[in-house]
Amino acid sequence: MNIKQVKHKIQYYETDKMGIVHHSNYIRWFEEARLDFLEQVGLNFAEFEKEGLISPVLSISARYLSPMKYGDNAIINVYLTKVSNYKFEFSYEIIDAINQEKKVEGESSHCFLNNTGTPVSLKKEKFEIWNKLYNMVIKKGENK
Amino acid sequence: MNIKQVKHKIQYYETDKMGIVHHSNYIRWFEEARLDFLEQVGLNFAEFEKEGLISPVLSISARYLSPMKYGDNAIINVYLTKVSNYKFEFSYEIIDAINQEKKVEGESSHCFLNNTGTPVSLKKEKFEIWNKLYNMVIKKGENK
Amino acid sequence: MNIKQVKHKIQYYETDKMGIVHHSNYIRWFEEARLDFLEQVGLNFAEFEKEGLISPVLSISARYLSPMKYGDNAIINVYLTKVSNYKFEFSYEIIDAINQEKKVEGESSHCFLNNTGTPVSLKKEKFEIWNKLYNMVIKKGENK
Amino acid sequence: MNIKQVKHKIQYYETDKMGIVHHSNYIRWFEEARLDFLEQVGLNFAEFEKEGLISPVLSISARYLSPMKYGDNAIINVYLTKVSNYKFEFSYEIIDAINQEKKVEGESSHCFLNNTGTPVSLKKEKFEIWNKLYNMVIKKGENK
Repeated sequence: MNIKQVKHKIQYYETDKMGIVHHSNYIRWFEEARLDFLEQVGLNFAEFEKEGLISPVLSISARYLSPMKYGDNAIINVYLTKVSNYKFEFSYEIIDAINQEKKVEGESSHCFLNNTGTPVSLKKEKFEIWNKLYNMVIKKGENK
Repeated sequence: MNIKQVKHKIQYYETDKMGIVHHSNYIRWFEEARLDFLEQVGLNFAEFEKEGLISPVLSISARYLSPMKYGDNAIINVYLTKVSNYKFEFSYEIIDAINQEKKVEGESSHCFLNNTGTPVSLKKEKFEIWNKLYNMVIKKGENK
Repeated sequence: MNIKQVKHKIQYYETDKMGIVHHSNYIRWFEEARLDFLEQVGLNFAEFEKEGLISPVLSISARYLSPMKYGDNAIINVYLTKVSNYKFEFSYEIIDAINQEKKVEGESSHCFLNNTGTPVSLKKEKFEIWNKLYNMVIKKGENK
Repeated sequence: MNIKQVKHKIQYYETDKMGIVHHSNYIRWFEEARLDFLEQVGLNFAEFEKEGLISPVLSISARYLSPMKYGDNAIINVYLTKVSNYKFEFSYEIIDAINQEKKVEGESSHCFLNNTGTPVSLKKEKFEIWNKLYNMVIKKGENK
């Protein structure tokens, strides 16, 4: 399955007084790309939450290699790196759309909860989606 | 009843590349002061929403008189200017805590909805709170 | 001159606990559409600011007609309604991309300042751009 | 030197449709506490940047142990864990002000740049501040 990249035009309101994108925004773009990825795979989050399931963030990390500026265009690549019964993990690359320079890289991990806060096995509850995700996992060192 | 003013220390992440507070943040501080005001009057929003009631914003306006910067401290004054069965209106002044200079002024209006989206009469549903609010309305031209 | 509409996919991080877009974000999208409009007309803000000019917001207003949700797609229409030597004014409509329902409408006004904070006449400093803008002003009641 | 803790009242605009604080906001509170810490030590960032120095974020990480909600009050503890000539590192704990439960923990690293983007040795440029910071470094395993 071919995943369409997410493009993000950098907005004035995303900058700070250093004149560059505030570092908290890249964390938001990780989410932007992750939910778009899941939607492309068939896990629409708006639908997902209507069924009483949520997927909170367990951890996040980011390395800021080079700043982005207002007027730049970002491409956000997202890779599924691990899927287990209760948890899934992603890695990210944010790239300048013009010169392909890598700007930010990072990772995040997530679980599934029902509306009482109990962990949910996606494998049990949504096997079809879980299986699709499982088959999309990219091993380390593998060509992306 | 004496309402305690809301103080807001301006954060780096609230600035933009102009080097000043991004104008959308003052709108957030209006909310910050409004919910604090309602809490002081006895309408705790976290409790309020647990009962299935919400209070969306109907309109907002702001005049930006002078910019605020990272490191400044803001005082946000909020005044209840109108209370009817279904609607209430506020006005705001954002003031520099040091020199008392007025930086931003604005207004907002709000209604009440239950969780099916139907307008709710606060006067009927929460008379005690409604009555308290009604008695706090400040007429135009009145000394604040 | 035909102005291309700005499309904005609503992000999860733009919602609040009411389950709808937080009202401060529409103010950001006004900016998103305004700067895109100016860029299309030839006033690139990144370039503009390199010359030491800035354009702070003087006032903003918005009426929230109907909430937008995560997963919705917005179209933001922007109209130039007034251009004078020192000031310009815009009006906005935010529309659901699917059913064309109007969700939010609003206005904003802006001036130009140099890096010492002195008001700048765009008509004098950038006549070509000023003139282009002047010819794009939409009169009230005019068909958009 | 005794560092005063930063308290942060959780705002409605910091929540998302899951009904909890959006995870990107904790990253902002890390900054809030870090800049407050530096200010207490004598490195006022507003002054610092007037001299043409900036301090961008190199990396960030966070583990989300338990969600915070609108109406909660957070305490943000910040610890300086490493100071070298060109780089400094912090760790963070975000704690519920009422029950002292740890909610989020994380780390960040930072460098110093002048306005041409060249790395700056804080040890050379601001020895007094650098030395003060150096003496505040907390070793791992040390009682905080």
